[in-house]
Amino acid sequence: MVKMSRWSPNARGRLEQAAYELFLDKGYEPTTVADIAKRAGLTERTFFRHYADKREVFFGGAAALQEELLRALDGAPPAFSAIEAVRIAVEAMSKLMHGRRALSRERQRIVAAHADLRERELIKRATLTAALAGALQRRGVREPAASLAADMGMAVFHVGFGRWLEDPAGRELVDVVHEGFDQLKAVASGI
Amino acid sequence: MVKMSRWSPNARGRLEQAAYELFLDKGYEPTTVADIAKRAGLTERTFFRHYADKREVFFGGAAALQEELLRALDGAPPAFSAIEAVRIAVEAMSKLMHGRRALSRERQRIVAAHADLRERELIKRATLTAALAGALQRRGVREPAASLAADMGMAVFHVGFGRWLEDPAGRELVDVVHEGFDQLKAVASGI
Repeated sequence: MVKMSRWSPNARGRLEQAAYELFLDKGYEPTTVADIAKRAGLTERTFFRHYADKREVFFGGAAALQEELLRALDGAPPAFSAIEAVRIAVEAMSKLMHGRRALSRERQRIVAAHADLRERELIKRATLTAALAGALQRRGVREPAASLAADMGMAVFHVGFGRWLEDPAGRELVDVVHEGFDQLKAVASGI
Repeated sequence: MVKMSRWSPNARGRLEQAAYELFLDKGYEPTTVADIAKRAGLTERTFFRHYADKREVFFGGAAALQEELLRALDGAPPAFSAIEAVRIAVEAMSKLMHGRRALSRERQRIVAAHADLRERELIKRATLTAALAGALQRRGVREPAASLAADMGMAVFHVGFGRWLEDPAGRELVDVVHEGFDQLKAVASGI
């Protein structure tokens, strides 16, 4: 069994894919970890090496998103304004969704149908926003600008994400988000 | 007992005040509905006429906030930009917090200490944001401007609320929020 998982490149991705397929086929509640592992051609033991439970499949990517967000923010030129740095960071994070539109659409459908998953999603967003605001403060951005810029960036990501899922032109999320920052500026200039 | 509640003007406010006092004195968990009613000089029956449970005391004002938010938005002049209308609405909602700074500070401390209350708070914010975006759409604001303006307005409220609680000058929330919209514009103009 250990060998089985050693022979499995991208076990995490395969488990995720299998989970979404099963959630769609038989529904979220009746699907068990055993079902998911079996569909992925892996063991339950391998599943639990990657995810704490079934619910975690939906949020297993959150750490990678946050890491990329903060990495890109730290790489933004010091002369950049707070919102320019946030744009760089949110666009870098958006690139992680490249090629994941169909999967994300199914994910969203399941999350929307379950109160506990919706709550967890809100917590994920709040956590990312707080991490971004903290990183901006460390760049020397004062309050309330740091918190506002972080909130605005996450709003652009969130609104862009919803539009991306339904985008008839099939653009990548990063392009929808890039445009979103221009729209944000246009909206704010109405004050 | 019915008479007792009839004789009680502002029963809701008294229950809220009593609840916060007890949460502070003995902690949130050990405080019972019976304790709260007793401290307020009211009956448990009266408590349950106003709140579904102990947790509800923290969120009983959400409906009034949303009502005021949407009422003010609908009253904003049609010529106003989306963000100007949002500013009117969020400032009107902020006025409901007038004179509630000490209570709000205690509330915030308790909510911050309990994961289930923090989650509920995030849900409240998401609900208000969605209601605001929907009302903007009904005003004729297109997407993504409606969602972005709603998210930005709620970000200004949220960030302003935190600053208001600690504001050394003791300004009212509406003044902190008013300034927040100018700061929002300044941040967004950095793009």
